[in-house]
Amino acid sequence: MPRDDTTRFRDGDGNPIHHLFGVSSFSEYTVVDVTQVVKVDPAVPPATACLLSCGATTGVGAAWKLAKVEPGSSVAIFGLGAVGLAVAEGARICGKKFGVTHFINPKELGEKTVSQVIIEMTDGGADYCFECIGLAALMNDAFQSSRAGWGKTIILGVEMHGAPLTISSLEILHGKCVMGSLFGGVKPKQDIPILADKYLNKELELDKFITHEVGLKDINTAFDLLLQGKSLRCTIWMDK
Amino acid sequence: MPRDDTTRFRDGDGNPIHHLFGVSSFSEYTVVDVTQVVKVDPAVPPATACLLSCGATTGVGAAWKLAKVEPGSSVAIFGLGAVGLAVAEGARICGKKFGVTHFINPKELGEKTVSQVIIEMTDGGADYCFECIGLAALMNDAFQSSRAGWGKTIILGVEMHGAPLTISSLEILHGKCVMGSLFGGVKPKQDIPILADKYLNKELELDKFITHEVGLKDINTAFDLLLQGKSLRCTIWMDK
Repeated sequence: MPRDDTTRFRDGDGNPIHHLFGVSSFSEYTVVDVTQVVKVDPAVPPATACLLSCGATTGVGAAWKLAKVEPGSSVAIFGLGAVGLAVAEGARICGKKFGVTHFINPKELGEKTVSQVIIEMTDGGADYCFECIGLAALMNDAFQSSRAGWGKTIILGVEMHGAPLTISSLEILHGKCVMGSLFGGVKPKQDIPILADKYLNKELELDKFITHEVGLKDINTAFDLLLQGKSLRCTIWMDK
Repeated sequence: MPRDDTTRFRDGDGNPIHHLFGVSSFSEYTVVDVTQVVKVDPAVPPATACLLSCGATTGVGAAWKLAKVEPGSSVAIFGLGAVGLAVAEGARICGKKFGVTHFINPKELGEKTVSQVIIEMTDGGADYCFECIGLAALMNDAFQSSRAGWGKTIILGVEMHGAPLTISSLEILHGKCVMGSLFGGVKPKQDIPILADKYLNKELELDKFITHEVGLKDINTAFDLLLQGKSLRCTIWMDK
């Protein structure tokens, strides 16, 4: 934990144990750097507040802080896991509208590509396209689906093969834009308390992201559910 | 000129002559659509005002309107023709500083790449990198030269071979951004009069962009000077 790359943790044999991502959330007790701590209204239940530490904040923030989606604009989300659905929620709180209205299953499109369908549905392309999977080819699909002249493509997925993004330089010249973020453009100390307040004011929906709860001894079940595509977020209770 | 794709112009044999880019500036008289006309303060000499119709406005606008360069930020410009120098002027009026401070000749770098040199000079990469040539490889150099985490790459060059832009998806995910513009993000009716006023107030330098002047009969000399890299902008006088 100390910033000199040493650690305060040791295993039973005295070997050092390092943090993952500066927090290491799968332990009952921990020591973290002050930079990793954010104060939120204690009225937010911890089981909900923990959603704000990553996935939900990344998606909500990407629409709210990074892309700054405007009311009335069209949004296409590629990949509807927790991050993708959080983008939808972020776009909803920006746009004051109901949220996801259409669902495209790429297996049911026949000869058409996803971008052709989105361009038809939006009469020219979506104003904002969010890639939430982590595939360079899908990032290109998102770029293709974005509106000529001003469409923004927002990369949230970690490209799982390290592949580069290859896109048309002329379409960028004509006004398209590609941006990305590891945490949705959110500054944790400043913005997570704002999201917590939005949750308390019932502006921001978070509870529905929690599809399962398990005790620490069943942590592997939590990962299995995620890998099987059966859960969005699973709360792990240390004391159950 | 009419919006139904017909034209009001005919040559001596009655064949239709169409506009280029909706204006066709190489004629003594013309008929243009109202969308192509901008009112500027008549105190601006026409020989200077014409610079605002494209090149200078594209570069100035790219820094001022599209990238929104902040005071104190670092700017790298790839290609110092009229557009690139206009980017420097746009960054200067955004930043209130003196302007271009360093010049890199890629032929004098030895083993080092341009991006390595820029990263060293800026201690991590430039906040804004403008590509003003039109080469996909140079767009990638610009992207590489932009600062990890938040560097913006702005594409102004028309890729001359139609090559795609290939960049690291992970660097975008970490916060880099690629954007572009055909006209520097400038809305002509609203923004060109602002630039004209800045010129009159001596905030914006335009006169030095005019390196040559010729009469219409010497129009080919104007193009030759441009191709030889000897001129930035050459004013063509219809009546000389």
